[in-house]
Amino acid sequence: MGYLETIDSPDDLKKLKPAALTTYADEVRNRIIATVERRGGHLSSNLGTVELTIALHYVFDCPADKILFDVGHQAYTHKLITGRREAFDRLRESGGIAGFPSRRESAYDAFSVGHSSTALSAGVGFARARDLNRGAHHVVTVVGDGALTGGMSFEALNDIGERQERIIVVLNDNKMSISRNVGALSKYLARLRLSGKYMRLKRDVRRGLDSIPFVGRRLRRLLEKLKNKLKRFLLFNKYFEDLGFKYLGPFDGHDIAALADTFSRVKKEKGPVLVHVLTDKGRGHKRAEEDPARFHGVSAPAASGGERYSAILSERLCAYAGEGRPIAAITAAMCVGTGLEAFEKQYPDRYFDVGIAEEHAVTMAAGLAAAGVKPYFAVYSSFLQRGFDQIVHDVALDALPVVLAVEHAGAVEGDGPTHQGLLDIAFLSLAPGMTVLQPKDGAEFKAMLDFSLGFDAPLAIRYPKKFATVFESKTPFSDALCWETLRAARAGVYLLASGGRMLELGLGIEEAGLVNVRVIHPLDGAALDAVGRDARLVITLEEGVIRGGMGEAVKLYMLGAHPAVRVVNLGFENRFTQGYTVAELFAEAGLTRENIRTIIRSYA
Amino acid sequence: MGYLETIDSPDDLKKLKPAALTTYADEVRNRIIATVERRGGHLSSNLGTVELTIALHYVFDCPADKILFDVGHQAYTHKLITGRREAFDRLRESGGIAGFPSRRESAYDAFSVGHSSTALSAGVGFARARDLNRGAHHVVTVVGDGALTGGMSFEALNDIGERQERIIVVLNDNKMSISRNVGALSKYLARLRLSGKYMRLKRDVRRGLDSIPFVGRRLRRLLEKLKNKLKRFLLFNKYFEDLGFKYLGPFDGHDIAALADTFSRVKKEKGPVLVHVLTDKGRGHKRAEEDPARFHGVSAPAASGGERYSAILSERLCAYAGEGRPIAAITAAMCVGTGLEAFEKQYPDRYFDVGIAEEHAVTMAAGLAAAGVKPYFAVYSSFLQRGFDQIVHDVALDALPVVLAVEHAGAVEGDGPTHQGLLDIAFLSLAPGMTVLQPKDGAEFKAMLDFSLGFDAPLAIRYPKKFATVFESKTPFSDALCWETLRAARAGVYLLASGGRMLELGLGIEEAGLVNVRVIHPLDGAALDAVGRDARLVITLEEGVIRGGMGEAVKLYMLGAHPAVRVVNLGFENRFTQGYTVAELFAEAGLTRENIRTIIRSYA
Repeated sequence: MGYLETIDSPDDLKKLKPAALTTYADEVRNRIIATVERRGGHLSSNLGTVELTIALHYVFDCPADKILFDVGHQAYTHKLITGRREAFDRLRESGGIAGFPSRRESAYDAFSVGHSSTALSAGVGFARARDLNRGAHHVVTVVGDGALTGGMSFEALNDIGERQERIIVVLNDNKMSISRNVGALSKYLARLRLSGKYMRLKRDVRRGLDSIPFVGRRLRRLLEKLKNKLKRFLLFNKYFEDLGFKYLGPFDGHDIAALADTFSRVKKEKGPVLVHVLTDKGRGHKRAEEDPARFHGVSAPAASGGERYSAILSERLCAYAGEGRPIAAITAAMCVGTGLEAFEKQYPDRYFDVGIAEEHAVTMAAGLAAAGVKPYFAVYSSFLQRGFDQIVHDVALDALPVVLAVEHAGAVEGDGPTHQGLLDIAFLSLAPGMTVLQPKDGAEFKAMLDFSLGFDAPLAIRYPKKFATVFESKTPFSDALCWETLRAARAGVYLLASGGRMLELGLGIEEAGLVNVRVIHPLDGAALDAVGRDARLVITLEEGVIRGGMGEAVKLYMLGAHPAVRVVNLGFENRFTQGYTVAELFAEAGLTRENIRTIIRSYA
Repeated sequence: MGYLETIDSPDDLKKLKPAALTTYADEVRNRIIATVERRGGHLSSNLGTVELTIALHYVFDCPADKILFDVGHQAYTHKLITGRREAFDRLRESGGIAGFPSRRESAYDAFSVGHSSTALSAGVGFARARDLNRGAHHVVTVVGDGALTGGMSFEALNDIGERQERIIVVLNDNKMSISRNVGALSKYLARLRLSGKYMRLKRDVRRGLDSIPFVGRRLRRLLEKLKNKLKRFLLFNKYFEDLGFKYLGPFDGHDIAALADTFSRVKKEKGPVLVHVLTDKGRGHKRAEEDPARFHGVSAPAASGGERYSAILSERLCAYAGEGRPIAAITAAMCVGTGLEAFEKQYPDRYFDVGIAEEHAVTMAAGLAAAGVKPYFAVYSSFLQRGFDQIVHDVALDALPVVLAVEHAGAVEGDGPTHQGLLDIAFLSLAPGMTVLQPKDGAEFKAMLDFSLGFDAPLAIRYPKKFATVFESKTPFSDALCWETLRAARAGVYLLASGGRMLELGLGIEEAGLVNVRVIHPLDGAALDAVGRDARLVITLEEGVIRGGMGEAVKLYMLGAHPAVRVVNLGFENRFTQGYTVAELFAEAGLTRENIRTIIRSYA
């Protein structure tokens, strides 16, 4: 038995001798690898923060001190230290523990997360509350270099820098966020990493200055004035100091003793401090170290099969660019997840990875569209929420032909409540003039993308990660934007379903007609009228919240035009989900054949 | 007749002799003052950019070259130069011209705006499209220092700095955004303004170095290496250079000749350039210069009367803090607009102006709430759209007791389509566990604020700028969160109305009952049942889009529980508004007594 089994709280950790911490780190690392290989999860980022997290808990006193992990995909070590060692076997499982920090799960999780770039904002909220309540504890935010590319991180830095609250920002610089890192700040950090070299230069300059024999009085005064500034200058750290932070670093993020020593000293600071720590993403896992983007999120082996929609997006966009069409592809730091790798390689001048910056991505797309280039912004549904205002004001206001390729729409396997793509139908439909599509399978997705090339207005195509079933196409998708009847009605019962997984549910229910609601917004009025004239009962099936969704729109339409038709909406309630697998999530929402059959029987 | 009447295009302007430009600027300034005093509008910001805009149009060739004005409240001079001199008399008027740039209005308006911090993102979209299309024109973005505090500006700077597109960023530094400027970046800019001083210092250092007689070879080499870096260092401009921009400035933003000369030189640059220009907000208007925040937005003299809700917010928050309650007030650069001036003065440690940073504001509020301080974020409805994801994930996920005081909700006078507060009911209701209230008048707003102190979950209170009518209270607002019947039904007809202005409409319609729907979400089920048992016809009235709004929720509830009741929803269609006055906007939405009466008659 190693140290791992003996540590169930930060107090246990503090009892270890410094020399034992390295061994403990190895054990933690092995446990993380073994668990993620079995259960899926975020591998690379968690392997990078093992020593850093141990050093933090060795020095700070949680839960009195608050440690906030940005994004939360770097908190496995934190969970193992803070009483969740046994539950860790049930990572990302209903009734087990979440893949991200959660206040409901542990008092050690100061703030619940899932999306990037929130820790600085939340952290300064904690620091301000502490100061207002005359508290003495520490607030530590652990922020990746990728998260710094998100605008709200800057908003927080700007705010903290002015008010000068006592807060410790640990910049976990792993030289990449999820994809390879981007942005001018990233280049700047690269220079910062070289600052060790300049430390030596500074020493030499000082020695040199001290040895100069004859110097004019005016110059000597000037040089004296410059001395402290030279220090900052030579360290290349002005960016953070310009923003009002004391900068320390860079430090080796895998040297526990040195980190612990640094954190002990940092505790004495009175204002905001930024501790720059260099870590290796995927550390200790050869394949993850070599290709951290691919091992960023690892799916559990049992995850459902099927083909990835992103492969089709990739193929189509490359084909369009190859034909000389004026298009561009945009990602917010999700090149691999959204399938743009091939496009990046073949058309680097038309490919824009903007960092974790969805607001900018949407408005930049609007600029491209206004200037005659058709932009495809490939983005996960739940992350697109960051661009809501920009979709309304910068895209819809002038009906600019931006295409939103909305991945991970609907129920999302493994990541829990923060990553569900359940709101996009509702919020996209609020943007005036927006058209929202969802394909039944890969071929239809391809047809929708081909259609998008000539469509001169805002367009969103939403889809989950994969499709398993290939449907027989009755009416190919076309610019008529009409629905498709996959099976005629039986006894006046219709299932109106959006997306392949909902249609799969419907395929098994022979006692009802089945309509492919591939155009979610606006509705296909002609198809609705045809259904309305014939139907007795309509059941809508969608992977999204019911409020403001497709089904409600159908129900309201029928109420006005065909009031005799009963409409039952199936979809998600407006609450955070509990389940981790797609099957659990569907069951939670009543999106099961059994439930559909019960409804049909109850209206028989 | 002066020059003003002779200039109807940038070509006309270019025909003026340089000496005439100053006179023209004076004429433009006078015209702006005269027009805004009559019609309302943005005074301070537009007076600050007269010379800057003239210099830009003197040098660049629009519409081939693209000039993007961030926020758009600094574009009046641009409108006067680009063919809208006569229409300028009908500023902010239906059928006249918009207060902001609009692509539908003029080919000279490259991008439609209204919200802050979008110009850099849109601009780099334009620049990228130009480069992909092998264009040669210039893209110029004019960005205020306040807009730089918005995270998406940083996201764009970070992106541009990496890709190094040819784009000209004019930093219009007026030393304040809307309120006094905040943030570390603002302090940094203040230092930058002093850089003239350091230019002289640099010269002296150089002279000094050249005159040193005996210097060790190693030191001489070092100093030589440092020479260029010293230049950057002494100019204090590393922030923007660290982000990959060539920095030029600061320049006097009211010296047309010098600006024109600078812009001519800047045209030759191959990559991103930042031109730092110092302007005086409110220049040439004594009262606006002295108090630019108050003259930021000037209402037309004819604007409707009534008392400001913000005065009540101010009074209440000061009272709570005075009682020692653990609260905090937050604004995103809208201290005056949201009524927090008194609070700022009396409780500066509990007051946080975070800059134009709604994302950060919401999550910072979540952090405060998680740590036991009750935050009140006072924000305009349309700007809160920027915080949608943060409301869902950082506030609602853990049901944190954040209070959103949502000003300018509903129809907004004068500013046009970008500033309408019509989406908040729909998007706030998507956040699980959110409660949305709207008071009928000031006393009820006060009661709602008092209630909020003890309410332990996310809460939004929405209200327009003012209230005119004080209603007789039948059932005082309480934590029972129930609706209020203001007038009993007649012949089974009910008006269900949210907010004072909708209730005022209903007051005049004696032939129907009138219910104060002060709790918009979730609905008051008991009240709905009471109405449902008694009603034949229900008409809902709300200042918001119908889709996903209060009325639809009422309709769906009745359909399920009281299907015999007919429900008609009045509110706004999901499209951008045309009107500029509240009366026009209400008419557009059918929110008139005449229309309500027509509906009642048609169901008689």
